[in-house]
Amino acid sequence: MRKIFRDVLKLEEAIERIYKFYRPIPSYEDKYLLEAVGRVLAEDVFAPIDVPPFDRATMDGYACRAEDTFRADEVNPISLNVTALMEAGVEPKVTIRSGEAVEIATGAVIPKGANAVVKVEDVRTRGDRIEVIRPVNIGENVMFAGSDIMRGELLVRVGTILTHREIGLLAACGINKVKVYKKPKVAVISTGNELVQVGERLTNGKIYDINSYSLSAAIIENGGDPILLGIAKDNREDLLKKLKKGLELADIVVTSGSTSAGAGDLMYKVLDEWEPGVIIHGIAVKPGKPTIVAICDNKLVIGLPGYPTSALTIFELIVAPIIRELSGIKTERRQILKAKLAVKVFSSEGRRELLPVSVVSSAKGYSVYPVTGAYSGSITSLAFSDGFIEIPEDTIMVQSDQEVEVKLYSKLKPSDLIIIGSHCIGIDLILSLMRKKNKFLSKVINVGSTGGILAIKRGEADIAGTHLLDESGEYNLPIIRKYNVKNAVLVKGYLREQGLVTKKGNPKGIKSFEDLIRSDVTFINRNKGSGTRVLIDLNLRKLAEKLNQSFDELIKKICGYEIEAKTHTSVAVAVATGKADVGVAIKSVANLYGLDFIPVRSEEYDFLIARDSLDKEHVKLFIETLTSQEFAKVVEEMGGIKIYERTGEKILV
Amino acid sequence: MRKIFRDVLKLEEAIERIYKFYRPIPSYEDKYLLEAVGRVLAEDVFAPIDVPPFDRATMDGYACRAEDTFRADEVNPISLNVTALMEAGVEPKVTIRSGEAVEIATGAVIPKGANAVVKVEDVRTRGDRIEVIRPVNIGENVMFAGSDIMRGELLVRVGTILTHREIGLLAACGINKVKVYKKPKVAVISTGNELVQVGERLTNGKIYDINSYSLSAAIIENGGDPILLGIAKDNREDLLKKLKKGLELADIVVTSGSTSAGAGDLMYKVLDEWEPGVIIHGIAVKPGKPTIVAICDNKLVIGLPGYPTSALTIFELIVAPIIRELSGIKTERRQILKAKLAVKVFSSEGRRELLPVSVVSSAKGYSVYPVTGAYSGSITSLAFSDGFIEIPEDTIMVQSDQEVEVKLYSKLKPSDLIIIGSHCIGIDLILSLMRKKNKFLSKVINVGSTGGILAIKRGEADIAGTHLLDESGEYNLPIIRKYNVKNAVLVKGYLREQGLVTKKGNPKGIKSFEDLIRSDVTFINRNKGSGTRVLIDLNLRKLAEKLNQSFDELIKKICGYEIEAKTHTSVAVAVATGKADVGVAIKSVANLYGLDFIPVRSEEYDFLIARDSLDKEHVKLFIETLTSQEFAKVVEEMGGIKIYERTGEKILV
Repeated sequence: MRKIFRDVLKLEEAIERIYKFYRPIPSYEDKYLLEAVGRVLAEDVFAPIDVPPFDRATMDGYACRAEDTFRADEVNPISLNVTALMEAGVEPKVTIRSGEAVEIATGAVIPKGANAVVKVEDVRTRGDRIEVIRPVNIGENVMFAGSDIMRGELLVRVGTILTHREIGLLAACGINKVKVYKKPKVAVISTGNELVQVGERLTNGKIYDINSYSLSAAIIENGGDPILLGIAKDNREDLLKKLKKGLELADIVVTSGSTSAGAGDLMYKVLDEWEPGVIIHGIAVKPGKPTIVAICDNKLVIGLPGYPTSALTIFELIVAPIIRELSGIKTERRQILKAKLAVKVFSSEGRRELLPVSVVSSAKGYSVYPVTGAYSGSITSLAFSDGFIEIPEDTIMVQSDQEVEVKLYSKLKPSDLIIIGSHCIGIDLILSLMRKKNKFLSKVINVGSTGGILAIKRGEADIAGTHLLDESGEYNLPIIRKYNVKNAVLVKGYLREQGLVTKKGNPKGIKSFEDLIRSDVTFINRNKGSGTRVLIDLNLRKLAEKLNQSFDELIKKICGYEIEAKTHTSVAVAVATGKADVGVAIKSVANLYGLDFIPVRSEEYDFLIARDSLDKEHVKLFIETLTSQEFAKVVEEMGGIKIYERTGEKILV
Repeated sequence: MRKIFRDVLKLEEAIERIYKFYRPIPSYEDKYLLEAVGRVLAEDVFAPIDVPPFDRATMDGYACRAEDTFRADEVNPISLNVTALMEAGVEPKVTIRSGEAVEIATGAVIPKGANAVVKVEDVRTRGDRIEVIRPVNIGENVMFAGSDIMRGELLVRVGTILTHREIGLLAACGINKVKVYKKPKVAVISTGNELVQVGERLTNGKIYDINSYSLSAAIIENGGDPILLGIAKDNREDLLKKLKKGLELADIVVTSGSTSAGAGDLMYKVLDEWEPGVIIHGIAVKPGKPTIVAICDNKLVIGLPGYPTSALTIFELIVAPIIRELSGIKTERRQILKAKLAVKVFSSEGRRELLPVSVVSSAKGYSVYPVTGAYSGSITSLAFSDGFIEIPEDTIMVQSDQEVEVKLYSKLKPSDLIIIGSHCIGIDLILSLMRKKNKFLSKVINVGSTGGILAIKRGEADIAGTHLLDESGEYNLPIIRKYNVKNAVLVKGYLREQGLVTKKGNPKGIKSFEDLIRSDVTFINRNKGSGTRVLIDLNLRKLAEKLNQSFDELIKKICGYEIEAKTHTSVAVAVATGKADVGVAIKSVANLYGLDFIPVRSEEYDFLIARDSLDKEHVKLFIETLTSQEFAKVVEEMGGIKIYERTGEKILV
């Protein structure tokens, strides 16, 4: 009776079980030196020759017997007979006797009998003779054979990743081919009837095959050689055909999709046609639970879930280490960073959660922001994050300020400029103008005006865009002071025209906020904490008052009030594509998307800048660009953003 | 009149002058997604579509109007009519009205009229109908079109190095080609009549062309595409021909050799045939002073010095940043590490010195050991170092314990095992046996027994090999106690037979140390601080006493006493190749090189192990291997090293 593995395993148990059934066995290949750059050496290499291979002059001068020069000085020079000239690369035919010397070039062979080189500046030439005016010691200005590398010496150890430094050592010994670990071949199969190959036309109901590409790229990054087998339809025949091809061509097969119970267990059933077939079915990790591992034809097949983030998470945890082992790369533990959570995070019980986060640093250490992809189907949540934190199986909430360990996807890129706060197209424009002058790395985290102010207060950001209206009718300063931010300066930005945006021609005839409660009108809201949301709610409160209703009553009537877009652009796109009839956004974005615009109010969009950051090159360039003619011209052409007399004004908060 | 640049410039001045004459202008190319992995994106990429492109079910279940389910519970289920089945990848043809639902698979399109999905487990099926037992909210289990990526959104910024994460984003939008920075082509020319191409036979007086390979590898590592043009002879015609070819094929030309005044200024003269030609001739950096920079046909030509370490140093300082700029890689400053010098270092005045160092870490921070290549011609000094320290122009000595800044060549590899101290072939054997069981990174720094004891005391090493004879006649323990080492354990190693080694057949008839003072005998010594040196001097002192001479008088008579080899192997090779007639080394090495061996004394070679390291996996494995049958067998076969009853004994020091 065959064993059936249907229990959901913890990650560690899963890895243990894989190694019980499967041993990664690397293979090797010979490569010419320059093809071997970045590859892993598969054997100890010993020096076949001495380097240098002969006693070599390290200076231009005269090779002679040091003993002859011992009494030389300026007043009593020693005269030597120059018998020959030794150039580099020439085999010496002379032997030096006492009283003799040869003129010698750097790199040339020290002739027999000679044991030192007198530098050219310590000699006066007199026809065929020289006068030595300073003594040399035995061995002076001579690099002895084998003094750099001795024949038989261990030159490069097995397991070394070959860089220009090892390549230099090998070249020095004349070695032009080395044995390196062969890149393991990994077949990649995506499954699903809804998938369309990247580059082809998307028809309704279909989505692009992300996993084939992101997994292949990850395979390359881990030292493997991906073989794209394309998309298998959701049926036994097609999947079987591709699996067999993968097992024939590759060392490991990675599939994605068709692993969850809902897919009719297709992958499970097909992989179980082999012996032993499926050895793992389900791992208690979020995202990525419906993972299948099988052994088919003695090769490892990993059935990853279909969602891109789930697939990549499991790839990183399980597949990458095996590829690295086969590639000869000593598996380094992912770089770990201690950080504090900037916000509170909820998790689900019973599964280990790997939460993608964005990391920013402050004087007090690192802070992390969860990268919020609302769904595990999200690809952006992974792409826009620096790493992930693990939330244990038994934890349902992690408090803000709690210390966490971030496992970084790659070396943390130091950002030259960190902007956290409200999103504005003006920031995108300033950054793109700056980029024309200067390359730099920036990190822009859109968390709304309030989030930005708090990030500045905690010292996490250089700049926060903010447009928060106080009840007094004043923008930004009163609220910044309410949050008691001390370490910053407010730089006045520009005026933005906010308004209601509708499709071209305003087909629903929207005039004011009052139209939002119409049953034939769908609204798209903005996220809580954003300045625009404050403006929306302020207007809706006024409306409620006018209609003599409670605010809560009013918003229940607005279709779409609960749907929150994160940026102005998102609102514009929602309206442009007909997902919503109306939203609130800035005029410049409305113009970009060819939308109609009903002005609501002109707001002051300002920049709260950390005092410590004011001297930073890219912060200075940011302010310079904000106040530049060029920026004024660009925003004027676009419309909706207006430079005014206060632009660039600095206010201590 | 043309300007002549013959002043030696400081590094910063040199870089400034290059940028006055030359602006790196990148070019671009289109690449398919997987070819673009690791490349730098050359333009902002915006999302051409929404992701997902339609409202999508995130669960298997039933799509319906959420409003229909609002009153559903276990007792009062809501009955809906199932009108169709929606599979993933299929365009929906139905519209959902109140009272209706469609069965829907994860990933399928939400049909018109539906706004939520009831999970399969919240439903009881009754033929063509379902009973919903739990209400759903609008939008529940639905991933809205564009909620992951909105059309028009900035997807990946210009300048981003493309990893699997960005590749995933691009694939999600169906983008299969992107514009990336083209790898700049860099022509590589080596010059010198003494050079032989790697892989060919070396004749007398010739050396292998190292620079073509190490520079090409470094070009690859910095994002460039090397074009090897091979070796130019030291004459105008040949050099001119290769330079013209380089200027024709490449964006930058890098040469090495023929730059110093002694080479007849060949490179200078040839490069000055262009206009403006040479713009820099000499940079005040050690190593690397004779560097030439020229502008020829509006392209940059850099004439590096011929010595490998000099060439690579200047490449890293001047050429690499330009290649990186052309490759679109934001020039990151080299990672800097604060460390303390483990030993005193001397430097020369007037030039900035870049000294290669090996880094080890301890609880108190990092310590660095200079990697001593006696000559700037040395390739090993660079290859065996982790980075370099800069010694300013006006400094002639840096004290040990002085804080220094190490610029790392690459990410510092954490070593699983650090061995600092006396060199022994036994250590090499243990490591190679360990490697059969386990891959690990080790760092072996040979500084002699005394250096090893101090390294353990400072907490820098895991293990120090030591064989120091005290005046009492006892090995190791008395001297370790003299150094007041507290944090370590002495693990007894093995007996090593030390003796005089001579060529096979002992042609000079050497019998004892007394033969060393013969004028026809050349000796090779060992480095100060090594246990073998202690043994040599002990024997020479006895001899001096016997001959009734002072020690100083005696050693003056020994030809070669001043020449110090760093390892037993070096001594053996020197004797085997006839560079010396006699040296002191261990029997195992003499056997390996087929030398005659005259026993001097059997010494106790032990391992001082840091107490904190005793629990380390690889330290445990080291001790295990030392005491293993396998090791005993290997050393017995080799001869000269003997396991005895004390091997493996642990002594608190």
